Amino acid sequence: MAGGKMQDEDVRVGVDRFPEHQPIGTAADDLDRDYRDLPPAPIFDASELSSWSFYRAGIAEFAATFLFLYVSILTVMGVSQSSSKCATVGIQGIAWAFGGTIFALVYCTAGVSGGHVNPAVTFGLFLARKLSLPRALYYATMQCLGAVCGAGVVKALVGGAAYTAAGGGANAVNPGYTKGDGLGAEIVGTFVLVYVVFSATDAKRSARDSHVPLLAPLPIGFAVFLVHLATIPITGTGINPARSLGAAIMFDRPHGWHGHWIFWVGPLTGAALAAVYHQIIIRALPFKAGASELTLY
Amino acid sequence: MAGGKMQDEDVRVGVDRFPEHQPIGTAADDLDRDYRDLPPAPIFDASELSSWSFYRAGIAEFAATFLFLYVSILTVMGVSQSSSKCATVGIQGIAWAFGGTIFALVYCTAGVSGGHVNPAVTFGLFLARKLSLPRALYYATMQCLGAVCGAGVVKALVGGAAYTAAGGGANAVNPGYTKGDGLGAEIVGTFVLVYVVFSATDAKRSARDSHVPLLAPLPIGFAVFLVHLATIPITGTGINPARSLGAAIMFDRPHGWHGHWIFWVGPLTGAALAAVYHQIIIRALPFKAGASELTLY
Amino acid sequence: MAGGKMQDEDVRVGVDRFPEHQPIGTAADDLDRDYRDLPPAPIFDASELSSWSFYRAGIAEFAATFLFLYVSILTVMGVSQSSSKCATVGIQGIAWAFGGTIFALVYCTAGVSGGHVNPAVTFGLFLARKLSLPRALYYATMQCLGAVCGAGVVKALVGGAAYTAAGGGANAVNPGYTKGDGLGAEIVGTFVLVYVVFSATDAKRSARDSHVPLLAPLPIGFAVFLVHLATIPITGTGINPARSLGAAIMFDRPHGWHGHWIFWVGPLTGAALAAVYHQIIIRALPFKAGASELTLY
Amino acid sequence: MAGGKMQDEDVRVGVDRFPEHQPIGTAADDLDRDYRDLPPAPIFDASELSSWSFYRAGIAEFAATFLFLYVSILTVMGVSQSSSKCATVGIQGIAWAFGGTIFALVYCTAGVSGGHVNPAVTFGLFLARKLSLPRALYYATMQCLGAVCGAGVVKALVGGAAYTAAGGGANAVNPGYTKGDGLGAEIVGTFVLVYVVFSATDAKRSARDSHVPLLAPLPIGFAVFLVHLATIPITGTGINPARSLGAAIMFDRPHGWHGHWIFWVGPLTGAALAAVYHQIIIRALPFKAGASELTLY
Repeated sequence: MAGGKMQDEDVRVGVDRFPEHQPIGTAADDLDRDYRDLPPAPIFDASELSSWSFYRAGIAEFAATFLFLYVSILTVMGVSQSSSKCATVGIQGIAWAFGGTIFALVYCTAGVSGGHVNPAVTFGLFLARKLSLPRALYYATMQCLGAVCGAGVVKALVGGAAYTAAGGGANAVNPGYTKGDGLGAEIVGTFVLVYVVFSATDAKRSARDSHVPLLAPLPIGFAVFLVHLATIPITGTGINPARSLGAAIMFDRPHGWHGHWIFWVGPLTGAALAAVYHQIIIRALPFKAGASELTLY
Repeated sequence: MAGGKMQDEDVRVGVDRFPEHQPIGTAADDLDRDYRDLPPAPIFDASELSSWSFYRAGIAEFAATFLFLYVSILTVMGVSQSSSKCATVGIQGIAWAFGGTIFALVYCTAGVSGGHVNPAVTFGLFLARKLSLPRALYYATMQCLGAVCGAGVVKALVGGAAYTAAGGGANAVNPGYTKGDGLGAEIVGTFVLVYVVFSATDAKRSARDSHVPLLAPLPIGFAVFLVHLATIPITGTGINPARSLGAAIMFDRPHGWHGHWIFWVGPLTGAALAAVYHQIIIRALPFKAGASELTLY
Repeated sequence: MAGGKMQDEDVRVGVDRFPEHQPIGTAADDLDRDYRDLPPAPIFDASELSSWSFYRAGIAEFAATFLFLYVSILTVMGVSQSSSKCATVGIQGIAWAFGGTIFALVYCTAGVSGGHVNPAVTFGLFLARKLSLPRALYYATMQCLGAVCGAGVVKALVGGAAYTAAGGGANAVNPGYTKGDGLGAEIVGTFVLVYVVFSATDAKRSARDSHVPLLAPLPIGFAVFLVHLATIPITGTGINPARSLGAAIMFDRPHGWHGHWIFWVGPLTGAALAAVYHQIIIRALPFKAGASELTLY
Repeated sequence: MAGGKMQDEDVRVGVDRFPEHQPIGTAADDLDRDYRDLPPAPIFDASELSSWSFYRAGIAEFAATFLFLYVSILTVMGVSQSSSKCATVGIQGIAWAFGGTIFALVYCTAGVSGGHVNPAVTFGLFLARKLSLPRALYYATMQCLGAVCGAGVVKALVGGAAYTAAGGGANAVNPGYTKGDGLGAEIVGTFVLVYVVFSATDAKRSARDSHVPLLAPLPIGFAVFLVHLATIPITGTGINPARSLGAAIMFDRPHGWHGHWIFWVGPLTGAALAAVYHQIIIRALPFKAGASELTLY
């Protein structure tokens, strides 16, 4: 397929834009493709450990997760402390606080660390070999530290007693739902988020659709907003183990730790499913030449 | 008209940007236009049936409609189950859930399948010859299957009794409105959506206004949001037969099936009217040279 | 000033990007500027009257204003008819309906007619010589016709008695405010809107800041949203004579016509002030060489 | 590192995009970088004082801050005057008014003055040497004047007694919080805003990520929105000394001036911290060759 033809098809909206006409089950490589997949990140890369940019990236993840928890948990406090939700920004305002903050922080941090702000996102991108194992562990650690500090500042600001009375923004499966319900909601919710992250940052799409990198932080932030709209009544919405951990540590009541595992197993499972879906179904990487260095495992 | 002149006029906002000065009623072709309409998709194209990208596109439509129903119907459940709307994300939150999810999913799926997520959109684009008949039928089938599964997961999560008590997110003409009112609201609402889809993805505009493909998923999502703001009090807002079908099958009460035809006839009629409006009034395709291969019929 | 220097300064955010160092009061033309102002539109241009694109533009203005009134007034009806605002999309939802619809419609119609959807915008752009007098009058007529039809469809859908009982979405100065208050609110509100329109579509900015045409419909829609947030309690917010006229004709009660002049004099005055501000203060057109063909009058 | 390699890495999302592999503690300059930092603005530049663009920039800051206070304080009035928040745009609507207006005004004013609309933003950018001292003082003065006039027009519109009864939109530390809480909330809130401003307008990011200048006003507006969601219950949210001053002067009650210093010390401290964080941690300017002319001090 010639490049000129391909460009025509690119502007053709409403049909498949990647019409490789690749016979099912074969691994024909489209040799003249106009994008290049980066080689997978090595599992371990000693050289990055001596780079300032590596440490700066972790600091940026710390700062972003700190600000994320600060804004979102403080918004939750304002709503929870009021007897009338009408005199507050309301549950919808909470959803905006979570999603909007992710939009702004991904926008600001993407150029420094990738803008994960979430261990589940880091885990999904690690499975897809977008970053090394030390970097993934380092990011997750810094995210959790930032989340604990962010929730801690909210607790100091609001006051310990008031913080605890208002639930501390901790995630828990609400009455009327089983642990299985909560786990399912966390899995599907994180799938939505990580699926959007993969779609928005796909190198293949970036090359063809110039709009992809432009708007990317916006749909990512919207995904967080939307999942909150849907699942706040079920679990308060975690889909981010660092956020759940930070709030649980500062809340530090049985209510806060009860079923805390759900907010790690759920998001990590959802992120893994999204990575599998995107790499195998959408990118079909295992079926392509050179797949050995591109597949998920 | 020289190309240089044309570019000047492009930055001239506030007046018509396509000043072909085409005499009314003639079919003069502007030979030096800077865009190229794609030839219409064939009614039947056997080659696409042996392409992996064809099947992947359907899977992407299934997944997107699944996630669309999951997020939106679960949000409806949370609002409907609460005795005080003030303690929920509210009716406005429901409108955001529908519109915001369409924004994120169109953004993520556009590069794989075109990102229809709606049989009415598929129908409108088919009428404009943007995709083949087998692809249109395949998309619509996968969209309906995805919608049924998405509503089913919500039902499983919320519990069958609670799901039914809360109305199951099913569309119906509300008391105080006639079936004709509901049909009219569905027709105009879907017209708004499909009109935005056509405008946002017009090849003519894409070539001239570089911003068109950049923002396209945003106004499309907003169109869904806005129609929900306006017509939730009338029909709950369908404008998407797959969404209405999925909710009706899972709700499965007379209330759910009563007048269900409205949510097929209305959206398909609105989509057809938008296709006619865009292709005939805005693009004026029948009046151009070579129109025989570009017109709607 | 060399072109290369200019480009450096362009990425310098936080300071003035147009440092012509033009001595105050002189009319030195910066000869090497990298943009070109279009010549002002002629007051009368007979050739456009024989162009299909001229008539198509008016049809597009009719359709856009029709859809604008349909979505926004129907949203107002849903909120007004409910005894509890909490069970509706609320006053904030009304503001989103007006602003969001303008965003989507400006996006879709900009390429065909300029996307005014508002006689005050048309008037402001006419004062700045962006379109001819016949085109301005034709646009305003089509906008008013579209608004009447849009409000009429809402009246038919909701039912005449219910429509009247809910106020018909008509603008009026609310109790507690004088006519002077209402007039002032309309003037400043329309100033905000038309100021954003001028800023977003400025040829000078378009040439230097590539982002201007990309996002333009979004701040324009936000301007409408914001003015509604602020002035719904005062006048219901007009800032669009076609919208006020359409609702008043369909409401057709003394309440609807009382002080209707405010919703023409206010918006047209605000638009004129915004045109003067942008052309004289921001663009400083009267002080530049060749100003005779660029000034406001 | 070759330019071609660098471009590959640019599309690699999920990992650090600036992998200079710069040894920690050294000041190795990456000589082949594809961007150029502007030289720091001089502390005093006599030539700009004779330029019309200098005075026009101040007028634009005056007009923008005027419109910012007009829209936001008028929205606050509408909500405060109503006994039921449900019949208004609500507290969330107030947050949208502040954030949305900043989005629209930054978009419109960025090309003329940089679009600060906030003395804290001006102070942060001055610390980073993005503008001269006279310009910074001139901007801050015009911003404060604009804010006073904007709040004054709201007072005239609403009526003096009603304005005072509704609190005049003045910032104050709410009951249940200490002055230290209020100061902390202002510091962190302004840090969020100015951090987003720096990230969104970073020359380094602008050169590599084409999307940065495109969306910049949107995350900046969202930052203001988000901080309002979180801290309206604490201080009403200042994070802008001009906004706090304008409302306090027009309110002119002990309640308005009590602790007014918090709304100057807090924002200016937060802005300074954001400048330090961005220039030292993120940009690592002190550790680079030529840092003497680029560092913060």
